[in-house]
Parts: sequence; structure tokens; C-alpha cells
Amino acid sequence: MKTQAMVMTDFNKSLELTEIEVPHLENGQVLVRLAASGVCGSDVHIWHGEDKRVKLPLIPGHEGVGYIEDIKGQHCSVDGQILHPGDLIIWNRGISCGRCYACQVLKQPSLCQERITYGINNPCDTPPYLNGCYAHHIILTADTDIIKLDDSTDPVTMVSASCSGATIAHAFDMCRIKPGSTVAVQGPGPLGLFAVAFARALGAGTIIVIGGTASRLDMCKKFGADMVLDRKSVSKKDRFDTIMQVTGGRGADIVIEAAGYPDAAKEGLDILAMGGTYLSTGFAQFTGYAQIDFFSQIVRKNAIIKGVWVSDTSHLYDAVHLISKNPPLFSNMVTHTMPLDNANQALELMASKKALKVVLTN
Amino acid sequence: MKTQAMVMTDFNKSLELTEIEVPHLENGQVLVRLAASGVCGSDVHIWHGEDKRVKLPLIPGHEGVGYIEDIKGQHCSVDGQILHPGDLIIWNRGISCGRCYACQVLKQPSLCQERITYGINNPCDTPPYLNGCYAHHIILTADTDIIKLDDSTDPVTMVSASCSGATIAHAFDMCRIKPGSTVAVQGPGPLGLFAVAFARALGAGTIIVIGGTASRLDMCKKFGADMVLDRKSVSKKDRFDTIMQVTGGRGADIVIEAAGYPDAAKEGLDILAMGGTYLSTGFAQFTGYAQIDFFSQIVRKNAIIKGVWVSDTSHLYDAVHLISKNPPLFSNMVTHTMPLDNANQALELMASKKALKVVLTN
Amino acid sequence: MKTQAMVMTDFNKSLELTEIEVPHLENGQVLVRLAASGVCGSDVHIWHGEDKRVKLPLIPGHEGVGYIEDIKGQHCSVDGQILHPGDLIIWNRGISCGRCYACQVLKQPSLCQERITYGINNPCDTPPYLNGCYAHHIILTADTDIIKLDDSTDPVTMVSASCSGATIAHAFDMCRIKPGSTVAVQGPGPLGLFAVAFARALGAGTIIVIGGTASRLDMCKKFGADMVLDRKSVSKKDRFDTIMQVTGGRGADIVIEAAGYPDAAKEGLDILAMGGTYLSTGFAQFTGYAQIDFFSQIVRKNAIIKGVWVSDTSHLYDAVHLISKNPPLFSNMVTHTMPLDNANQALELMASKKALKVVLTN
Amino acid sequence: MKTQAMVMTDFNKSLELTEIEVPHLENGQVLVRLAASGVCGSDVHIWHGEDKRVKLPLIPGHEGVGYIEDIKGQHCSVDGQILHPGDLIIWNRGISCGRCYACQVLKQPSLCQERITYGINNPCDTPPYLNGCYAHHIILTADTDIIKLDDSTDPVTMVSASCSGATIAHAFDMCRIKPGSTVAVQGPGPLGLFAVAFARALGAGTIIVIGGTASRLDMCKKFGADMVLDRKSVSKKDRFDTIMQVTGGRGADIVIEAAGYPDAAKEGLDILAMGGTYLSTGFAQFTGYAQIDFFSQIVRKNAIIKGVWVSDTSHLYDAVHLISKNPPLFSNMVTHTMPLDNANQALELMASKKALKVVLTN
Repeated sequence: MKTQAMVMTDFNKSLELTEIEVPHLENGQVLVRLAASGVCGSDVHIWHGEDKRVKLPLIPGHEGVGYIEDIKGQHCSVDGQILHPGDLIIWNRGISCGRCYACQVLKQPSLCQERITYGINNPCDTPPYLNGCYAHHIILTADTDIIKLDDSTDPVTMVSASCSGATIAHAFDMCRIKPGSTVAVQGPGPLGLFAVAFARALGAGTIIVIGGTASRLDMCKKFGADMVLDRKSVSKKDRFDTIMQVTGGRGADIVIEAAGYPDAAKEGLDILAMGGTYLSTGFAQFTGYAQIDFFSQIVRKNAIIKGVWVSDTSHLYDAVHLISKNPPLFSNMVTHTMPLDNANQALELMASKKALKVVLTN
Repeated sequence: MKTQAMVMTDFNKSLELTEIEVPHLENGQVLVRLAASGVCGSDVHIWHGEDKRVKLPLIPGHEGVGYIEDIKGQHCSVDGQILHPGDLIIWNRGISCGRCYACQVLKQPSLCQERITYGINNPCDTPPYLNGCYAHHIILTADTDIIKLDDSTDPVTMVSASCSGATIAHAFDMCRIKPGSTVAVQGPGPLGLFAVAFARALGAGTIIVIGGTASRLDMCKKFGADMVLDRKSVSKKDRFDTIMQVTGGRGADIVIEAAGYPDAAKEGLDILAMGGTYLSTGFAQFTGYAQIDFFSQIVRKNAIIKGVWVSDTSHLYDAVHLISKNPPLFSNMVTHTMPLDNANQALELMASKKALKVVLTN
Repeated sequence: MKTQAMVMTDFNKSLELTEIEVPHLENGQVLVRLAASGVCGSDVHIWHGEDKRVKLPLIPGHEGVGYIEDIKGQHCSVDGQILHPGDLIIWNRGISCGRCYACQVLKQPSLCQERITYGINNPCDTPPYLNGCYAHHIILTADTDIIKLDDSTDPVTMVSASCSGATIAHAFDMCRIKPGSTVAVQGPGPLGLFAVAFARALGAGTIIVIGGTASRLDMCKKFGADMVLDRKSVSKKDRFDTIMQVTGGRGADIVIEAAGYPDAAKEGLDILAMGGTYLSTGFAQFTGYAQIDFFSQIVRKNAIIKGVWVSDTSHLYDAVHLISKNPPLFSNMVTHTMPLDNANQALELMASKKALKVVLTN
Repeated sequence: MKTQAMVMTDFNKSLELTEIEVPHLENGQVLVRLAASGVCGSDVHIWHGEDKRVKLPLIPGHEGVGYIEDIKGQHCSVDGQILHPGDLIIWNRGISCGRCYACQVLKQPSLCQERITYGINNPCDTPPYLNGCYAHHIILTADTDIIKLDDSTDPVTMVSASCSGATIAHAFDMCRIKPGSTVAVQGPGPLGLFAVAFARALGAGTIIVIGGTASRLDMCKKFGADMVLDRKSVSKKDRFDTIMQVTGGRGADIVIEAAGYPDAAKEGLDILAMGGTYLSTGFAQFTGYAQIDFFSQIVRKNAIIKGVWVSDTSHLYDAVHLISKNPPLFSNMVTHTMPLDNANQALELMASKKALKVVLTN
């Protein structure tokens, strides 16, 4: 049996549709026919050769939802159900070793040094070859954590749970929302939208988003933001004053950084309330130094800052359940869908920020 | 009845021994004959006019231990014991309002905006006048939290619990030590010494101190440090390499900043392990911006940074119990004792860093 | 100036409408014209002489919302706003001492041994006399924590935040809801309804209520329960089996006991999932011993059981914000309103369980 | 190559020394020459046929320390070190699946339903046959978590970390010790001794042990207990009164149940302070129902009860580090050592409670 994948053999070059022989499965492996493959912002960085982990040739794509076509032996879902052909599934895009200090002592598998991520550091010249989601099929290893989805799930809507949804679930796992909490979100991209949705779903009081793209800020309102502040039209001082006014002079109890720039970090700690928590999720690479005043931005406030690096299976589990409660809402996040062989166009769209989220429908 | 206090009427001028009439007590107030008054590093800043909270004229001194001479009505200790004349006591140097958002919702009274601190923002022209510890007597208000000490307690040893001890107890309240944890301490002053002592008492594995004063680093060893790294003789790169080697390449699980300088913050986040916690306790005022790389120093590590601002009664309670377990050890911290009227000399000694800790014995 | 209150001078006798002179306020005291006084289930126990804390004569009523008529000196809200006549307010029904081990070291003021509760252990022959909510006016002491409400707030709907709302907020403060969590609630009274509402607002997955009164179970559905199990028609075994089926054999991640009977505790630990948390909120007095199998109900499951005793100001704060988000929903909880002088009828209605919640509208 | 093991083919019969062919290793497997095999109290239950998990024929023994003789392929320690023949190691006695809800979502591998434990539910007629520690050799599977020990480690002293040490580390992972905490321990067996040692090492204030065997209570003093209460000579009421007196009427902040009987649970909740935490570690099977008064023993106290089921690798890691700090102390726990072929005598000694801990030295 043969399948097709979009293969990246050079950075900054077009991916090419390539026919690949589906290998025989080994014990525990699962052959999946992809129904939806998400195009992530980091795929653009990968394409541009900016991600040092990547080895070519690569089938990109770390976000996938699909139907099981075949299983060798037995593979159970995280919920303990035996999986069968025909089941609709999603999976943790990262495979941690399960045996190291990060996995077993810290219990933070996202920090595992041996973590392999489909479509990133898992090249397609290594068995079982079908190691990325820009394809009609992917083979999941025996140690991949799989969540079985309800048959009625829309794959296109759910696929974002894989990466941005799970990462934001990780952030919320590290803080505590109260009915009176003010949550500020910096950056209205997919991470920021999930931050709004999680804050709303977990009972936050007031949700404020700071961003620079009007259409994305409008989307944030749809996702439940009470107030949006456009960096293009509202000055930094006015943003600060507005947030202080809304919060009775206290500032935001929780600030979620989903922007990835040092200026955001600096502003975020300024608008943070005494006793507040700052969750930094948006830095995927070095983008410059943030000038931090430890005295007034951290110490004097008893502030808490937490770094949030990718996610693990528990976070994917949360994200899947969050989306399952309100699929029509989350379907808004996907601005473009297109067939697999349009993957180059999809990357261009993401690079131009014209799309909020593109999903390949295979 | 009259008593005497060292009064500060001008910044940078000598304090003068002044006779003051002891006022009639109001209900719940406690007249204390001071047995030991600690001279804190921040007293030097106050003296130099660098602390904006201060109002003159002031009886400095926020650290005190003494014997109750008189009580109007009833005042119970935090432990619920009715206090009596003759009791040896220590007290929370700060009085929080008990009614505000910080006190009642956050339950972080150290963040109370109305917090009044003896010897800092409580001038001696305001009733009941005896509002600082550089004196033979102090009057504690009805809402001061008091801990009764065992009669055998050495006041000179215990007085450090008031400020540096309680602040470090606050830091340890915000993290979790494990038997295998490596704890790094930045700065070997009183805060740093307490950090070493707490880490040891709470079961840390390896304790490493970074500092620039050899005599203080030696003292850290006495307090339980396994390794000291002298900034004057060990380069930043060598300090990093040493800590990585000691920790099997992981870095320190917990880093306690007790230095107060941006360079310390930057180095501290570099030596922090993945999944580690950075506790910043040493910034009492702005001393410059720290250049922080959010990606590699925070996000990629799932690092946690916590600001630690002063302390509350629960932290004082911890510090008192810690010192009570090993008074001979903590007595080493006090390098100089002298009578009250030598307070000017005491401040000079602290300013010159020739003394680690001076205690006025009244 | 005179006002009127319903005074209880003997247990099990009718309360009598009594005219009382409003005393001069002392510093910090607040005279409130009550707009809504909640009749709590525990008022019935008080009336029957079953609550040992009570001293007669008493103006019952610990739940109130009202308008400030007068303030002596200054009193700030918990949010730091200076309060003025005309402000609509709610307050913490309990006044903790703020100085004891529970208040300052544990930071659990609900455990304060000196806690005084309006309308319970604060008789009306003690100044300032107007110490309960079954009255046209109440005087709040200087150390009462007050929350200012928006003028548009419906007092009748909000008054439940005082007691059952705050107690359930306390429970949720001690656990962690996840998007996939199954929450089971035992008992569909006011506590149980708040448990459903909080679980829904904080993002729970599936909410199941077990109870014995069909009308109350219907109300639970309105508040967001996904499934109700009527003890009168579904056997204990069938309830267990149903919950196991709904949860894929795992059981409920969080169980909130709001029933107050030993059998509920026993059943609650049976339906609790491995790694689950059991929150016990419904026991206000001894009602018998629960037969607990520590091995299989607690140890084998890594189960966590937490007792939840009344509430503090932080919990009231949460409950007020929760209700503020959806007043129409919470207005359903109040099945009866009537004027103050019908308080005896109100107590009868609550005793008969014909009413879910009665509010006196003064 | 052949080795020898003591094999249990029938319950309540003598184990027999049996010669077994060492199989060829599979990838990742580690052949270990055992230097010390602990005889656990639960081995006696296994021998008596009381543990339903057991399948015969069995090489008992879940506690082991030994030297690597051979490795197929590569196996890294939890600390990330590549293991080599000659290394002295200890390992997690349980192998969790790493993929299920307990392992990946709860992150509590001790609750994994597929958990396999050496010497308990891993019979010796299943490859690789050498599945227990009552032997000269054991084969560790590729997914066994291994900790490399310092060459100077005494295997006999360290072997207790495997089971009782790790279980108590689990308990302490679920609570918070403060310098002023009073910790009460119920039961002075190996679990109780570790509880004393951990409480001491983690900085507890006062440690009190309740037990019924004078010699074991004496050992508790050696491990750091401040007070022991012998159930045989001190009545339940006197034990309660003593603890209340020692704690100023508050009770113990933390109580660790290491006894396994319902009466202990009942007494333990009585002596627990308001706001206290009860950790139940001693129930390995049903031993009767505890009569719990939820109102006064749990709810009125805001008490927290936590079940502690076995342990995972993070707990073993803690226990190993704890013992490493003070081997001479922990060597006291082992009252008897004997060669492997005396395993039957060892079981008799443990059954009679004449031994506190027997270690087979192979």
C-alpha cells in the first residue's frame, strides 16, 4: 500500500507531494488516515530553517486528527479503551521517554530531553517514515498517547487541541482562576484565543486582550473577551491606565503572554496585580532581552512568573475536553481549510498572517 | 515614667539619645522593655534617606525582643496564650490592616497597602510615640501579633527572626525542598545565611552559596553550606560549570536571590534547573534592570520565579521555631553587640559591611 | 431613631416583632437598612435549640444585603473603596479575631475560635444590639469585612452568597476542576445548587447530582447538572453503576458532600475516582458515624478528603462574583419572598422543606 | 549461566532454593547480582496467601539493591547516566505502563492499573523468570526505573528505600512540614520509623510516636522522636491529653498513620489539629471499618485526609537521598541479616515481629 505526503527536503523550498510505501506495522503501532492536519505558526519557522531541532527530509505537521486504519497488536487510549480501526483519534504530538528525571521525578514530560515530536525532529528517512501530519497517513509509535474522540467530532475544529490548545491548557494548569479574577492576554493569535477560551470556561471574571491585529482582536471578543486593547491605536500608557481602571487600581490577577516578544514581557509585568501570576507561553525562540525591574515588577508584588514549555498528555486531555464543550465556538478559529497538496500555499498564508489558522483536510 | 530612645531627626546625622515620657497605655497595648534590638541593613538605607516610606522624627529599629513590663487590658499571643508582665516576646514588625484585599482575599498581609512597620513608617511624634526598637522601651499596639518566647531564649540570637529570618521563611513558604534538591543561594548576608539554615533544616540535598566576601562565605559553611563560590576568585563561567557539574548537568532546583542586584538575577536564572524555582528576596529598591532571556531562562525550563516581599506573622512563626531548634548556630550570625547609645557606631559598622549583624543590647 | 427586628427569646416559640432604639454608632460602625435577609436551613436548627453556640435573646439571620444608612468615621470595602451612605453592600457574616493562630498562621479565619457570627452567637442584649438580619436594620462592627455591590444588584438574589454560596466557594477553593472533570454533588439543597453552579462556572466536564427531592433535582438541572439520580427511585447500586458507566469506570473526580449524613459520606467515597477529591461541606452537627473502609475507600485510591467549615471573606468574594455573572440563574434559587414580620412562617416553610430558600424582604 | 532463587510454589509452605538458568537478555534488560534483598512485612502476607495479586510460582522479594552484571543494549539511570556493569543500583519495585490515565493525566503512576511489582504479581514462570529479589540475580526490564548509587553505599542499609522508605516519601510529598509543626506518627514499624526520619529531616518541630512495642518505640527515639506514647501503658485518653498539652491544646498538625487499623484512624483524627493533615499509609488490606464522625473529626477542623498508596520513582528518589545523608542512622533499622537460603527463617522472624527488618545478603 502506498500513501502520499508533502515532503520538505530543503528549507525555504516548496514541499513536494511524494508517494511513500506504507511499511509493515510493528507491535503497538497505529496507522492513521489523517482527516485534518493543522498548520502551526511554528511550521513556518521550520520551513524557514529557524528551528534547530529539525532534520531533513521531513514530513512537517505536528497537529493531526484522523481515523485508525490499522493497528498491530493492541494499543489502548489514555482512557483505557482498546482502540480499533475506524476510531477517530487525536494524540500527543510529543513522545517523551518516560524514564528520565523530567518524566519520572519532576513529572513534567514536556521537559524530557529525549522528547520526539512528530513533524519536527522526526525525519521521514527514519522508520516508520510516516512521521508527520502533512500526509494522508501517519504511523503512531507504540508509546504515543492517544485520545479517542467521539465519532461526531469535527476533525478540523479539534486539531488545534494538539498544539496551541494543549500549550494553553498547560498554562492554566499552572495557575488558579477565581470568579473575580481579571485575566489579561497578550497576543490574539491561536495561543491567545485559547487563553481567552480557557479563561472564560474556567470562570474568570474580566478578560482583556492586548494585540495589534484588529481582526484577531474581534475574534477574541467572539471567544469571550470583555475588552480588547489594540496596540496600534491605544498607547502603552493608556493600556496600563485602562487596565488599572477596570481592576480598581489593582491590575490583572493573571496575565498570559502569548506574544513572544520582550516588550510584551515588560508590559505584562507592569499590568500584573500584586499577588498576581504571569504565565509566559509565547517564546519559542530567543527574540531579545526583556529589561526587568525585579524590585517593582516582581519582588514588591509577590509576583509569580511561570514559563510554559509546550505540553504533555494531561494538557492535551484538558484541551480536547474544552473544545468538546463548544465546537461551534472553536470552529471560528480555523479561517482556512484546503487539501493536502496546497500545503505550500497554507504555509504562505500563515507566514503572511492573513490566516489565523489553516487546516489541511487531506 | 520616662525611658530613652535613639532618635533620628535628620538623615545622615547622628541619632541622639532622647528622654521620652512613657504614655498611658490604651486598651490592648503592651509596654515592652527591649532586651535586644537588631540593626538591619535597611536601617542604613533609612539613615541615608533612601527609603521613601520614612517620616521623621523616627526611632529606628524594626527588630526587637523584650520583656513585657505592662499591658492595658488583655493581649493574647498568636498561640492563644494570655500575655503577662515578665513574658519574653517577639512580634511581627509590620501591622497590616486585616481588612483589605491583600489581607482578606489574597491572604498575603505583607502586601497590605496600609502596613505600618515599627521603626520605619511610624514616626515618634505620633502616639504612642515609642514606635521603634532603638530604645529601652517600645509600645506595641493592640493589633500587633506577638509570639511568646521560652524564658531560656537568648534575645540577641532570636532578634534576627524579626526581619531577615521571617523574610527567608516567606521564601521557603513559596517553594518545596526535597531530600535531593540542590539549593543555590546568591549573597551571603543575613538573608543568605538564613537561606542556608532554612535549606539545611528543611532537608535540602546540596547547598551552594555564591558571594563576594570571604568571611561571610565561611560563615555560610558553618551554617551548613556544602560549597561556596567566591565571585572574587571564581569567574561567572566557572561558577556555572561547577554548579552544572555538581548537579549532573541539571542546575540548581531552587535558587534564592539574596543579593539585590540585576546581575545576580541574570546569573540565578542561568544556574536554575529545568523545572526549578527562583525566589527573589534581596531587592529592597530599584538597582537597575536585569536583562532576561524569557525563552531560554524561563519558558524553555518551565521555570518558576517568585518575588518575596517582606513577611507576615506566619513567617515570623516559622523563623522563631527554626532558631529555637539550634540557638548556638544562629548566635554565630551576630558579630557585634553593643549598648543602645552606640547605635550610631552600629550603623557605621553595618554600612561598612565590617559587621554581619549588630545587635543593640539596651 | 427606632427600628424593628424579629426577636427570638425562647427556642421553639414564635419570634416577636420588637421595636429597638438604634444606638449611636461607634467609630467604624456601619448602620445598614436591610433589603434582603436570607432564611438559612441552620436558622431552623437555631430556632429548635439545636445549635449550642446560640445565646438568647437573639435577632436571627446571618445572611443580609442592604443599603448603608450611616457610617461613623470611615469604613472601607474589601476592595479598598471608601463606603458611603446609599451604597448597597454585603458582608462576611463572621467576624474573626485577626490575631490568632488560625487567623495569622494557618490563614484560615473560618477556624478562628473567637469568630462571632451575626444572628448566631451575637445576642441582641449586647451592644450594638442590632446584631442579626431578621430586622429592618443591622449595625456592622468596625472589623466586619464589607463588599460593595453594584447598584443594579438584586438583593434577594445576592443574599445567598452570604452563607451557602460562600461555603461552597470555600470547597472549590480547596480543589481543582479540569475541563474533563466529573463532579458529583450529594444533596440538592442550597449548598448543592451552589456546588452545581460553581462546578459549571469553573469549567467542569460532567456534573451529576444525587438527591431525594424531585423538585430540587429539577432545579439542579436548571443550574447546569448533566444528570440527576433520585435516591427514591434509583438504588444505591444503580447509582454507583451509572456513575461508573458515565465515567468510563473511573468514578467522579470530585465529589461534593452537601447532605450532612453518614450514609452520604460512605457512598461518596465509593463513587470517588482514584486520585479524586472528596469535599465535605454538609455536616453542621453530629448526625452519626460513617463506616469508612480506609483501605479501599481512601488509601488504595490516593483519595483526598477535605472538611469545609463555613467560609471567610475570600470565599464570600468568590461567591459574589459568581452570582454577579448570572443573576437570572441564581434568582431561581429563591422560591419564596415575604416581609420581615412573616419570619415565623418563613422558618416553618424551611423546616418543612417546602421552600428551597426563603428571603425576607424587609 | 545458572543462578539460584528461593521459590514459593505453595502458600504457607517453605520456599525452596532452586537453580534457574539465566536467560539471554533482551534489549534494555539489566542483569543484577543482588547484594541485599529486603524482607518486607507484606512478604509475610504474600506467604500466607493473603495478597490476592500474587500468582505462583513466585520468587518473592520486591526490595533489592545490587550490582549490574550485564546489560543488553543501553539503559540509563533516572538521572540520565548510562549504566554499566559493576554499577551499584536500586530501582523502582513497580513498573507502571506509562500510558494510561493514572500515568499520564493524573501523573500518579502508583495508581496505574497495569502496575507490575517485582516479587508480587510477576511470577517466575514468565520471562525473564528472574522476577523477584529472593535470589542471587534479578533481571530488570527495559522500562524499570533505576537509580545509580554511590559505590560507598551500604546495600543492606539502602534496601529499605525500595518500599517503606519510598512509601513514606510519598506521604511527605503530599503534605507540608513547617519548623513549628507537630508531627504524630501512629505505628513504630519500618513505615513509622521512616516517618520519624523524614519528619526530622524535613524540619518538623515536635515528633510524637504512638505504638505498642517498647523496643520499636525506643528505636523511634533514636530516629529523632521527641516523645513516644506506649499504647500498652498509656490510655487513649491520656495519649490525647498529652498531645493536647504538648501542642498548647491544638493537636498535631500532621498525623501519619502507619498502623493499618481502624482504631488508629479514629484516634488519629481525634489528635489532629484544626487545619491539620492526616496521611494514611498503613492500610494494605481491609482490616475493618473506622467509625468516623465527619462533623467534628473532619468538617469542623477543615481537616485534610490523604490516602497514600505505595509509591513511584520520584518517591524512591527522595528516599534514596534521605538515607544517603545519614546511613549510620538508617543502619539501625535492620535488626537481622542472613544469607539468602535462610529466607524461610527470615519470614518467620518478620511474622513473629521479633525482627523489625530482616535483610537477605545473598
